[in-house]
Amino acid sequence: MITLRGVVGGRKVLLVFVCLVAPFLYLLLFIRSGDSGQCQFVTSRETVVFGNDGKAHSYDRSSPFIFIGGFPRSGTTLVRAMLDAHSDIRCGEETRVVPRILQLAAQWNRSAKETNRLHEAGLTDQIIGDAVAAFILEVVVKHGEPAPRVCNKDPFTLKYGVYLLKLFPQAKFIFMIRDGRAVVHSLISRKVTVTGFDLSDYRQCLTKWSNSMKTMLKECEELGPDKCLKVKYEDLVLHPKSQMERILKYLGLPWMDDVLHHEQFINKPGGVSLSKVERSSDQVVKPVNVEALTKWVGAIPDDVVHDMETVAPMLTSLGYDPKANPPNYGAPDPEVATNTYDVQKNHDKWTKTVENALHKSKHLS
Amino acid sequence: MITLRGVVGGRKVLLVFVCLVAPFLYLLLFIRSGDSGQCQFVTSRETVVFGNDGKAHSYDRSSPFIFIGGFPRSGTTLVRAMLDAHSDIRCGEETRVVPRILQLAAQWNRSAKETNRLHEAGLTDQIIGDAVAAFILEVVVKHGEPAPRVCNKDPFTLKYGVYLLKLFPQAKFIFMIRDGRAVVHSLISRKVTVTGFDLSDYRQCLTKWSNSMKTMLKECEELGPDKCLKVKYEDLVLHPKSQMERILKYLGLPWMDDVLHHEQFINKPGGVSLSKVERSSDQVVKPVNVEALTKWVGAIPDDVVHDMETVAPMLTSLGYDPKANPPNYGAPDPEVATNTYDVQKNHDKWTKTVENALHKSKHLS
Repeated sequence: MITLRGVVGGRKVLLVFVCLVAPFLYLLLFIRSGDSGQCQFVTSRETVVFGNDGKAHSYDRSSPFIFIGGFPRSGTTLVRAMLDAHSDIRCGEETRVVPRILQLAAQWNRSAKETNRLHEAGLTDQIIGDAVAAFILEVVVKHGEPAPRVCNKDPFTLKYGVYLLKLFPQAKFIFMIRDGRAVVHSLISRKVTVTGFDLSDYRQCLTKWSNSMKTMLKECEELGPDKCLKVKYEDLVLHPKSQMERILKYLGLPWMDDVLHHEQFINKPGGVSLSKVERSSDQVVKPVNVEALTKWVGAIPDDVVHDMETVAPMLTSLGYDPKANPPNYGAPDPEVATNTYDVQKNHDKWTKTVENALHKSKHLS
Repeated sequence: MITLRGVVGGRKVLLVFVCLVAPFLYLLLFIRSGDSGQCQFVTSRETVVFGNDGKAHSYDRSSPFIFIGGFPRSGTTLVRAMLDAHSDIRCGEETRVVPRILQLAAQWNRSAKETNRLHEAGLTDQIIGDAVAAFILEVVVKHGEPAPRVCNKDPFTLKYGVYLLKLFPQAKFIFMIRDGRAVVHSLISRKVTVTGFDLSDYRQCLTKWSNSMKTMLKECEELGPDKCLKVKYEDLVLHPKSQMERILKYLGLPWMDDVLHHEQFINKPGGVSLSKVERSSDQVVKPVNVEALTKWVGAIPDDVVHDMETVAPMLTSLGYDPKANPPNYGAPDPEVATNTYDVQKNHDKWTKTVENALHKSKHLS
């Protein structure tokens, strides 16, 4: 009897040892497994944030980030607001610093002299990439709430799409495309400064828009359809349901009706966080409507309209008739027609809603 | 008896449990302790590299980094080469990108408009700091071999010394100071480009040197003597032993004779890694000597020499007599006198040594 109890006791000790100590040893092994380059990656890049739920959320370079890009004033804020209404996604405000660091890295990469100097100093492209990725990871993850899918919207990031995919191999890109005449009219009428754009000159702005779009389209096509989805602003505002279905399917996320009512989630926890000083904030407070579609008609000088095909060759490439003023973008879905009627009829009410929403934005200056 | 054995068995289980499981629970607690901002810090920033010894070396923002700064051509390369000869220290080549990211962050911080925009987008100073620190950590740690003390030498980092200390609270700074007349003569005679400096104009360069030194001295004094050590280039080349003793004591590192013979460690593993394209590489291949001390005498236009006190007021502030051409920097230690005699007498031999060293530098272009 004594012997039996002894044996049973020994087995129990072994059991306790195996069950409780094994995970500890495993963890120790994981932390110490120094030979694997993969391990080096993971330990280097992990950024941990704590949600309002008190839980730790961890992100690294293999997290499935979403990058929304395109030319400014092309609906990038609208699509991010609609995605922000989805409970699995957080985009948030433009960080401004993500395209800046990408631009800096691109400058280094473009200059053969600078690249040589960096390589001579032991700074390989991989190390620069590690540093740029570490910077972006901190910024994108920490400036908003955690979510299963963290998204970034800084329009010009798409200029560096191929490079960004190298840094974040599981990322997906959304490329917003809009009629350049509407884009430039919006820039000029709302006095939105973009480096190199002369806001007193429609012709120059349209040509520059065309060149910039050419660059971004090239990046998007090099990324390929699995990694870069083209979305037309006109399609999004006319047919939000079918377009959002297409976008969520591409992102591998389930459908949620909430994405069609982003205006109900403005500045709510887990919803659409807005910056008072971003130029599109006042517009996305309203539901999806077609108000902004054809405002440009009649505002562009006749000589520029006449030469449109050569002034902005990307219009044709992207499927916009340069001779139609306006082209037929299509008819809105019934819900959009209703929204547009509401926004126009109740102009004063919506003006107040906008004021309230921006006053309440989380960081009061 | 049975009861006793049972009790003893129970105690053993308890003992096993406490000894083996407690560290596991502690680790789990550490990883999960979501409320502590400190914990978030640690997990975010760790950068792990693998040495030639196959061991993993881990660095984070609380690692005791060494930052060497000062105006270019002031002996920053010499001091880093001497420190590189110490087995506990690795400095390595100028990264060039560390001051660039610091400059970018400073631009954002200086502009009230930009700061407001960033804050509105949820990008607090803390998050920007996290991102900048993550970038610097990757670059500084990965571009060279691991060592107990990793050091960075990019001269202008000291302009951002106070900010850098916030990012790396355990860092220590070394501020290299040299007679501005020698600095500017070196810039001009070796055609070293520095942004904003007109290399055809001694007067302009001296004034700009003076202003730049004023900024860096201010940073160094704000850091205080525990965090920023001032080292005069003239003292370092005349009295290398006492100066290196002072520096190592300040850094909390043991004395090693190797630091007085850095030229013996050029491009050796664990030694002094050089870049072919850095302007000072050819000079640090030679042993410490006083060749460069007074080359400037006679090269500066008379009118500038006449107005020196007002052209470069920092000369006086830093203890250099603006009216003496040259001032009495002091007499060299016997070893330095011997080195200087050797370098001058065996000019051709040293020219070949320099050529060989730079040809062998690790990254051939």
